[in-house]
Amino acid sequence: MTATASPFDSIRDLIALIPPASEAALAAVSAREIQLTKPQGSLGRLEEIVAFLATWQGKAQPSLDRPLVAIFAGNHGVAAKGVSAFPASVTRAMMENFSVGGAAINQICAAYGVGLKVFDLALEIPTKDITEAPAMEAAAAAATFAFGMEAVAGGVDLLCVGEMGIANTTVAAAIYHGLYGGAAEDWVGRGTGVDEAGLKRKIAAVEAAVALHRPFLHDPLELMRRLGGREIAAMAGAIVAARMQNIPVVLDGYVSCAAAAILHAIDPGALDHCLAGHVSAEGAHAEVLRRLGKKPLLDLDLRLGEGSGAALAVGVLKAALACHTGMATFEQAKVAGKAEG
Amino acid sequence: MTATASPFDSIRDLIALIPPASEAALAAVSAREIQLTKPQGSLGRLEEIVAFLATWQGKAQPSLDRPLVAIFAGNHGVAAKGVSAFPASVTRAMMENFSVGGAAINQICAAYGVGLKVFDLALEIPTKDITEAPAMEAAAAAATFAFGMEAVAGGVDLLCVGEMGIANTTVAAAIYHGLYGGAAEDWVGRGTGVDEAGLKRKIAAVEAAVALHRPFLHDPLELMRRLGGREIAAMAGAIVAARMQNIPVVLDGYVSCAAAAILHAIDPGALDHCLAGHVSAEGAHAEVLRRLGKKPLLDLDLRLGEGSGAALAVGVLKAALACHTGMATFEQAKVAGKAEG
Repeated sequence: MTATASPFDSIRDLIALIPPASEAALAAVSAREIQLTKPQGSLGRLEEIVAFLATWQGKAQPSLDRPLVAIFAGNHGVAAKGVSAFPASVTRAMMENFSVGGAAINQICAAYGVGLKVFDLALEIPTKDITEAPAMEAAAAAATFAFGMEAVAGGVDLLCVGEMGIANTTVAAAIYHGLYGGAAEDWVGRGTGVDEAGLKRKIAAVEAAVALHRPFLHDPLELMRRLGGREIAAMAGAIVAARMQNIPVVLDGYVSCAAAAILHAIDPGALDHCLAGHVSAEGAHAEVLRRLGKKPLLDLDLRLGEGSGAALAVGVLKAALACHTGMATFEQAKVAGKAEG
Repeated sequence: MTATASPFDSIRDLIALIPPASEAALAAVSAREIQLTKPQGSLGRLEEIVAFLATWQGKAQPSLDRPLVAIFAGNHGVAAKGVSAFPASVTRAMMENFSVGGAAINQICAAYGVGLKVFDLALEIPTKDITEAPAMEAAAAAATFAFGMEAVAGGVDLLCVGEMGIANTTVAAAIYHGLYGGAAEDWVGRGTGVDEAGLKRKIAAVEAAVALHRPFLHDPLELMRRLGGREIAAMAGAIVAARMQNIPVVLDGYVSCAAAAILHAIDPGALDHCLAGHVSAEGAHAEVLRRLGKKPLLDLDLRLGEGSGAALAVGVLKAALACHTGMATFEQAKVAGKAEG
């Protein structure tokens, strides 16, 4: 008797093959780090960042020459349940805004020299309302994951995973509720700023969605296609593809981390190449990061999405790498080292 | 009967004259902020930053065209007490390193387009050992404060206040212990990475210094000249001069904030134009910021000084201002606003 082939089999096979850390690159940057003209460890997380970049680029001299923010955008049937403060048409309108450079993420990318690519995931065909049906067919979910994988290419040396999609904090909350249990309200925040009545509708939608799909949620990929949106599946694919190509990833906020959480549920090691760019002001993001074992780099009360928190983190990463690359050693600068007591 | 004139009278007079916030500029940026294509408040602290810049530059369109890191360097007689892991000669050597671009602060400034000026405060003549005598004469302290004031000029639109000086975390700890009481060990950290025996010497030095000068510490400027170093006096002057010239200030770490704490003890409003760039890993910096009423922008486990944490914060400030300046409004982008429920 043979098991039925699933569209998810190839994804599972791929995740089983993710490459390990480069210990050699880590050793190389660590050896240089202790020679630089500063007390050891005094650059704190900047030193951790350099070690992280070396480890996951597999390069003794890490680079940040071509960092990229990839925004994946989707629309959601559950928006019809009145879970957002904004109409679903805003997803498309914001795509236009990204393309003409008018959004927050455009300014942040320009400020730090970060590339930006935006991927429209069939916005005219929202996923099904997760309170009534699975969001996507399994084959569509697998294809969207593959689309996300293909989006990662072209010599990028750092990937920030961002998203846009009216109602997608509802979808993310359903994913967390499905993965981590608790009560629906533990995972639901105000998203774009929904009012009290909207918040109640949002909690009810998350509760209903998880109750409906409960029997199928033990498999994270099945959970993804039932509760997730297209941008969730695509971001998950992008994160895996980055790992395969030695590209470190910066996660963004509440929704971006829902894609990461799916992978983490399959294999906690699948996120080792990912850094939490920030902790969002949205609902339970801090708790999500705790479960993912990630300490956020920034805490700026952001709750925008678009990859904005991840892109802000790139600014810090660039400075961290500049310190490592450009600083003089004690020997070069003829600075006396620490007295040995 | 007339009071004897003190070299500090003119400083007190000056602080009494510090200008208030510009409510008009704040109103202007706030009016624009709510029109930008994002949910209201979703850029969190980035929005607060823009409001801060407008308020203290007094400009409806704040700028960050000429941000500057000013590093003030001093040497300290108390270094002879074995309170640092590095010899006092390192202060001078690091000045050379700054001048050839080999230090961490050089790389961070280059990464974000921030200017850097370094001021050498008579390094060859260390202040007196604070465990045995006042660090400086009152006239010298006032003159150094004035020197710090004069360092702020030339069209700068943001000032980061940094420092360098072997043994100056001991001096800063003595200032906090003198201002805030408690036990000496509450305020003493490991600085550049002093060992256990050195830490004990450092605590003993802070204890002895505060005990010696206790009768004179009710006057913050007298405290400054007795427990402080030249870089502390100069930074205090620079912070006041910035206020007079509508230049917002970014404070750096543990030592930079000791200068701020002196001003705060004179007038809590004297720091309203100052933003805490980061919370340092050094000793009691978090507690100091709490007492100053400042929420740090970054928390990156830095403990380097040199203005490094403040300069990193400038990266975030630049992105914040870029968002405010460059984003499209809802009207421009034809994005539907929030549905009114």
